[in-house]
Amino acid sequence: MSSSSTNPGTLSYEQAGVNYDLIDPLKVAAQRAAAATAGHLSAHGFSEVKASRGESAYVVDVGPFYLASIVECLGSKALVADEMKALTGKSYYDGIAQDTIAMAVNDLITVGATPLVVQAYWAAGGSDWFGDAQRAQALVEGWKKACDVCQVAWGGGETPALAGIVEGGRIDLAASCTGIINPKTRLSVGDALAPGDAIVLLASSGIHANGLSLARKLVERLPNGYLTEVVPGLSYGDALLAPTTLYSPVTEALAKAGISMHYCANITGHGWRKLLRHPSRLTYRIQAVPAVPPVLKFIQQHAQQDDREAYSTLNMGAGFALFVAAADAERTVEIAKAQGIEAIVAGRVEAGDKQVVIEPLNIRFGDDDLQLR
Amino acid sequence: MSSSSTNPGTLSYEQAGVNYDLIDPLKVAAQRAAAATAGHLSAHGFSEVKASRGESAYVVDVGPFYLASIVECLGSKALVADEMKALTGKSYYDGIAQDTIAMAVNDLITVGATPLVVQAYWAAGGSDWFGDAQRAQALVEGWKKACDVCQVAWGGGETPALAGIVEGGRIDLAASCTGIINPKTRLSVGDALAPGDAIVLLASSGIHANGLSLARKLVERLPNGYLTEVVPGLSYGDALLAPTTLYSPVTEALAKAGISMHYCANITGHGWRKLLRHPSRLTYRIQAVPAVPPVLKFIQQHAQQDDREAYSTLNMGAGFALFVAAADAERTVEIAKAQGIEAIVAGRVEAGDKQVVIEPLNIRFGDDDLQLR
Repeated sequence: MSSSSTNPGTLSYEQAGVNYDLIDPLKVAAQRAAAATAGHLSAHGFSEVKASRGESAYVVDVGPFYLASIVECLGSKALVADEMKALTGKSYYDGIAQDTIAMAVNDLITVGATPLVVQAYWAAGGSDWFGDAQRAQALVEGWKKACDVCQVAWGGGETPALAGIVEGGRIDLAASCTGIINPKTRLSVGDALAPGDAIVLLASSGIHANGLSLARKLVERLPNGYLTEVVPGLSYGDALLAPTTLYSPVTEALAKAGISMHYCANITGHGWRKLLRHPSRLTYRIQAVPAVPPVLKFIQQHAQQDDREAYSTLNMGAGFALFVAAADAERTVEIAKAQGIEAIVAGRVEAGDKQVVIEPLNIRFGDDDLQLR
Repeated sequence: MSSSSTNPGTLSYEQAGVNYDLIDPLKVAAQRAAAATAGHLSAHGFSEVKASRGESAYVVDVGPFYLASIVECLGSKALVADEMKALTGKSYYDGIAQDTIAMAVNDLITVGATPLVVQAYWAAGGSDWFGDAQRAQALVEGWKKACDVCQVAWGGGETPALAGIVEGGRIDLAASCTGIINPKTRLSVGDALAPGDAIVLLASSGIHANGLSLARKLVERLPNGYLTEVVPGLSYGDALLAPTTLYSPVTEALAKAGISMHYCANITGHGWRKLLRHPSRLTYRIQAVPAVPPVLKFIQQHAQQDDREAYSTLNMGAGFALFVAAADAERTVEIAKAQGIEAIVAGRVEAGDKQVVIEPLNIRFGDDDLQLR
């Protein structure tokens, strides 16, 4: 079953220019080669947590605790910031910095890790990128502020000028993040996930940093481009550039409250299909959906996507999914809200086929829907 | 005092297109903001090793051991691989993969860390980059092989297609690396460096991955471009593409042999001025220089650089400097050789002005030479 619509006006993610058929064979070869290196850890007296292969962060057992690490890319969201800067004169790079850190931190925490150190990777198309003091300062300040929110130390990083590799006037942004899982019982690679668990969805702030290829492509269809209003007083560009929510304050607060995460999914590039991430055969029954941010409603409408296509591509208001014991569900929502992040108990895990059933919208995603990419 | 030559035919690093005057204000602002985040570690019961700020890798005290992390960029060496592929049909990306890992690993080990996990950051200009199966396979195989040499686990990574940010047909390569310093006595941030210590220089394999802007610029002056012979049977392009030596087998073997590194310097972008990296006021007296790889001799000659300019820009045969107790010097050389890496006892640390004195070449670099870049 494919997630593609048959409506000829529909703009799908694939049509927006990312061809996974070309990337996937490399990914498979790389994953195979990477898995074959795990044995090296034994030379140092350590071992990998095998279940973390294929999860969002890689985990190594170093004895007293687990070590988790990751590198993540912002993607193409900075291109929207550049377009909007040209239109409004405003620098959006403080938000872009937060987006970049969020890509790394929100993935790292899915395995139960406390993020400790972030490293910055800012590869510009030329030295002159850094010569725009306002923009550079916004990037630095936003990066620092996001580190403050996540209580993570900014260790350092790289600021290469890569003329000939990165396009002139552009910047390739990424972040690496290292954390520890301590106590080791915080490890969350899905062993504890079981029928009866509650699914708590944490609100997103908008598109976050996934689906931007589609969102940028859509601009061609809009009467006023990025300045087209999503709701009165809010332009499409401004709405897209809402910084990604940082979820580590929630996962840290949960740990402090003694609530165990049975599993997590950072809802990114595959929309709600990410709820199928866990390898087990389980059904995820959704009985309540969160409010959809105006910019995502707007994209769905202008890209002529049906609900199925929209929920299979975009986060539709749910940026992060927490799977917890049913008894902990309401307290999990309260703890998230105390951190300033809206949350709902959206549904439950059930025995049954591997599928997500979004009852209020009459959508079903099966196992093959996530395999597709 | 500047490192620039007054010979009008000389090609300097700055002339090759990297303008540090534009990057440096951002770097300073970023370093200041980063330093201000260190306090967050206390929320998790940890603290930074302050002396690691400004060193090649960032170090955190996590109790039973230290944690070190880094992200590093390959730079522009892949552009040479692309040019040579067009000329010879050969894929050089296995070597390029090793270069990228070396950039991260060789920096991480300077603080005394054992590299444990490498993450790959491969950002291509479009999905089609990954469609060249021979090249993609070479990248994967080279990456795996370098991990094998360093006994490091390849955790995973990112393979984004970033059309509009990375140039079409190009790839932006970087690696993050996480390691631990265990036992904690292995921490090497320079506290132990003292007059009387020996300076051991480990051989480089060629230009490594620094100075490539200059090396690429130089091609315009060569009769046969990248195919100009450096020595009979070895083209300039092939010589440039010799993969960077991985030094972690040496530092690990030294630790096993009980030899303490008082300090290390990975000799990269500033040539032998990197010997001045340590913050103390000390004199580094060099009495023997290693053999210069033919490609570096060739660059020096064709860029019309005097020895001073060449040694201030390129590694000139010394890829990594180890500062050890004089009594350990000969054994350090033997251990490096046992790992297949040439090494010499090149000189000693003395009380005195902050300077490098290369006696055989009558060169002196003072403190201001490293500030200048």
